[in-house]
Amino acid sequence: MLRQSAHEIALSTKGRGFYDFTNALRELVDKSQLKTGLATLHLQHTSASLLIQENADPEVRRDLERFFSKLAPDGDPLFQHTSEGDDDMPAHIRTALTTVNLSIPIVERRLVLGTWQGIYLWEHRTAPHRRRVAVHLIGE
Amino acid sequence: MLRQSAHEIALSTKGRGFYDFTNALRELVDKSQLKTGLATLHLQHTSASLLIQENADPEVRRDLERFFSKLAPDGDPLFQHTSEGDDDMPAHIRTALTTVNLSIPIVERRLVLGTWQGIYLWEHRTAPHRRRVAVHLIGE
Amino acid sequence: MLRQSAHEIALSTKGRGFYDFTNALRELVDKSQLKTGLATLHLQHTSASLLIQENADPEVRRDLERFFSKLAPDGDPLFQHTSEGDDDMPAHIRTALTTVNLSIPIVERRLVLGTWQGIYLWEHRTAPHRRRVAVHLIGE
Repeated sequence: MLRQSAHEIALSTKGRGFYDFTNALRELVDKSQLKTGLATLHLQHTSASLLIQENADPEVRRDLERFFSKLAPDGDPLFQHTSEGDDDMPAHIRTALTTVNLSIPIVERRLVLGTWQGIYLWEHRTAPHRRRVAVHLIGE
Repeated sequence: MLRQSAHEIALSTKGRGFYDFTNALRELVDKSQLKTGLATLHLQHTSASLLIQENADPEVRRDLERFFSKLAPDGDPLFQHTSEGDDDMPAHIRTALTTVNLSIPIVERRLVLGTWQGIYLWEHRTAPHRRRVAVHLIGE
Repeated sequence: MLRQSAHEIALSTKGRGFYDFTNALRELVDKSQLKTGLATLHLQHTSASLLIQENADPEVRRDLERFFSKLAPDGDPLFQHTSEGDDDMPAHIRTALTTVNLSIPIVERRLVLGTWQGIYLWEHRTAPHRRRVAVHLIGE
C-alpha cells in the first residue's frame, strides 16, 4: 500500500560554503521503511541552493565556489538591489543558476545516489543562517 | 487514501520578464483539498523558465534580468541558431541555466514555500507568448 | 488504485554531447500503462546533466555547447581540481549550472512534453562513459 510522509531538515550555516546533509536524508528514508519510493526536497529560501555534487575531492567544491564567485562577484556595480548587503544579489543569482528542488528515487530501501554523489546545502550568504529543507517521501 | 490529479495553468506573457503565478497554483492546491502531498510543475517550453525567487523587492528580479542579459546577450555572434530571432538562442540558454521543473511539498493544506518565495514564469522571448505549465498533485 | 515502479535507463556516451533518450522514457511510460501520473528522473553522476531542450534545429544544441564551453573552458587556470583531466572541473560546473533531476507529469498515457521538447543526457566529459538514469513512475 502506498503511503507518504512530510518532514523538515533544519540546517545552521556558518556563512558561504557547502553543508553535506546526505546522512540526515538517509536517516529519514531509513526510518520511513519505504522499500521503493521517491524523496522530494524543497529548500525554503532564495539565497541558498540544494546541490548534488562530488563528495570525494573537496577541491571540486572549492573550484565551484571560485567559479561562481567570479561569475557573480559580490559588490558588482551591475546590481541595484544592495540594501541587504554586497553578497545578497549574487546569492539570488547563484540560486537561480542552480536549484532549490531535488527528487531522488528510493530503491531497495536506499536513495539511488551515484557512488560519488553527496547532497549539499550551498549557503550563498556570508553571514550564518538557519535554513529549512522540506522533505516529502512517498512509496511503499 | 492517496489520490492524484493533473491540471494545467496557462499564462499569457507580454515579452521578457517575470510573471508571478503563485496564487494560481495555491488555488489548485486549495481546490484539491489535499492536507499533505506534493505539487510538481512542468513548463512545456524551451525558451522560458520556472523560477522560485524573492517576491519582496522587485529590484531583485530586475537585477536577475540584468545579469542574464549580460551573460547571454541577444545577438551574440557566438550563436549560429539565429533564424528565430536574436533573442531565441539566449532564451534557450537561460532555460538551460535555470529549470522547467518545480516540486513543492504540501503540508497542512499549504505549499511549503518560504516567507519570501514566489513562483514565477520567466519569459525569455521578447514577443508575447502563450505558455502552459502542467501541474501534478498527489497526496491525501 | 495508485501504483509505482522503479526503473533504470543506461546510456553509453561517446564523449561530450547530447544524447536524446526521449523514446526510451516513452517506452517505460507505455509499458507502465499509467493513464495519469508522474515520471521522475535522477542522473547518478556529477559530470553530466539531464536537459529538456529543443529537438528541432540541432544548431540549438551546438550553440548550447559553444556557450558552456566558453563559460567554463577546459583547462581554465582558475581550477585546482585537475587530477581527473582538464575537462573534469568544467563538467562538474556544467552539472551544477543545469540539473540531474527531471519531473514530468503523465496525462492521457503520455508524458506532457511540449511540441519541441526532447529529453537529453548531456555528457560533459570528453571520454566515453556509461551513464545511469534512475526513473520512478507513480500514478494509476
